[in-house]
Amino acid sequence: MSVRAIIPFKPKNPKTRLSPVMSLEERERFAEMMLGDVLDAVVEGGCTPTILSTAPYQLTGVETLVHGGGLNEALNEILPRSEGPTLIVMSDLPLITPANVSEMVSTTARMAMVPGRGGGTNAIFLPNPMGFRADFYGASFLKHLEIAGDLGLSVEIIDSFRLHDDIDEVEDLVEVLTLGTGASRRYLERLGFVLSTENGRVGVKRNPHEQALVGGN
Amino acid sequence: MSVRAIIPFKPKNPKTRLSPVMSLEERERFAEMMLGDVLDAVVEGGCTPTILSTAPYQLTGVETLVHGGGLNEALNEILPRSEGPTLIVMSDLPLITPANVSEMVSTTARMAMVPGRGGGTNAIFLPNPMGFRADFYGASFLKHLEIAGDLGLSVEIIDSFRLHDDIDEVEDLVEVLTLGTGASRRYLERLGFVLSTENGRVGVKRNPHEQALVGGN
Repeated sequence: MSVRAIIPFKPKNPKTRLSPVMSLEERERFAEMMLGDVLDAVVEGGCTPTILSTAPYQLTGVETLVHGGGLNEALNEILPRSEGPTLIVMSDLPLITPANVSEMVSTTARMAMVPGRGGGTNAIFLPNPMGFRADFYGASFLKHLEIAGDLGLSVEIIDSFRLHDDIDEVEDLVEVLTLGTGASRRYLERLGFVLSTENGRVGVKRNPHEQALVGGN
Repeated sequence: MSVRAIIPFKPKNPKTRLSPVMSLEERERFAEMMLGDVLDAVVEGGCTPTILSTAPYQLTGVETLVHGGGLNEALNEILPRSEGPTLIVMSDLPLITPANVSEMVSTTARMAMVPGRGGGTNAIFLPNPMGFRADFYGASFLKHLEIAGDLGLSVEIIDSFRLHDDIDEVEDLVEVLTLGTGASRRYLERLGFVLSTENGRVGVKRNPHEQALVGGN
């Protein structure tokens, strides 16, 4: 049975913590590039994607559901009606590979999960999602472990930095420029971002003479 | 042949970025706890550890070499004289497991490597270390890739958040409290550290009525 991959996405004013180094348009485009990297990996990994968007959003060939309220409320409407294996994977994981997706959906446990940086949850796979309840935000990794425990689900924690490193902060861009290979990295490079080492610590700087390109790939 | 694991360690005034929440004595003890978690994993993973210390340091049953200068200089004296497979693994990786160590030393490539957060290198395994040159600090992951390229070494990048999350900053303690299972986590808990969620973001706070215990495990 094909695995459905639900990818939460915020097309409008996303990634506000990148505002110090990117304009609104650039942040929206960068979020789309990261979504594109996730979609590529998910499809190559054998899943059928559904974008779960906070606002109307169109991408040829990909189903999009729009929800007006909170992510948890939307997921907790969808999951009880899902009949097949379901992957929930965040859209800000530009280091993801098809092998990561395959590993998740091949778990022999009744749930596979990847913690995000800072206590969050970046991906959940449920061979049978009926009865599961999503509780994203805050220390959601521990909350999801507890929910799995309440349901008696065995859990495999997938040990992958590619699924662990979500991109929220300016300093997170170091990971994309060091380890990324997809559209997100290329977009950062087109915007003029390069690694910059000062006092032994690595950050990013933006080359001021580069064009602020919106819409590139 | 047994794999030698070289573990760089700084016993005096380590982890200065944790100063806002830990005293000097606590930082030194926490660094020892992290070293202990790494030693446990390395030994269970089938390696023979050598601590490469910046100052005299004694731990029963573990060889310690003291170097007075830089880490790279010390490693680049040791590596050309190393005859067998060698793992270099940082001492601030409290999430490490024996399986992580086994995976590294089982690589079929001529080098296995794990990037640290922020462009660094957290672990390198060399089946044959002769000719390799260490270049830690700054964007060392890319530098080590380049050195491997110059030597014509095939490289496997090990995809593990347990080896990727080095602990430097106060916010990194969230990972230890969420995902750790060893002495480092227990020590943080004894010091009164707990997760704290404010405005949806997870951090740590230190319970003020806990004793500042130095020397515990």
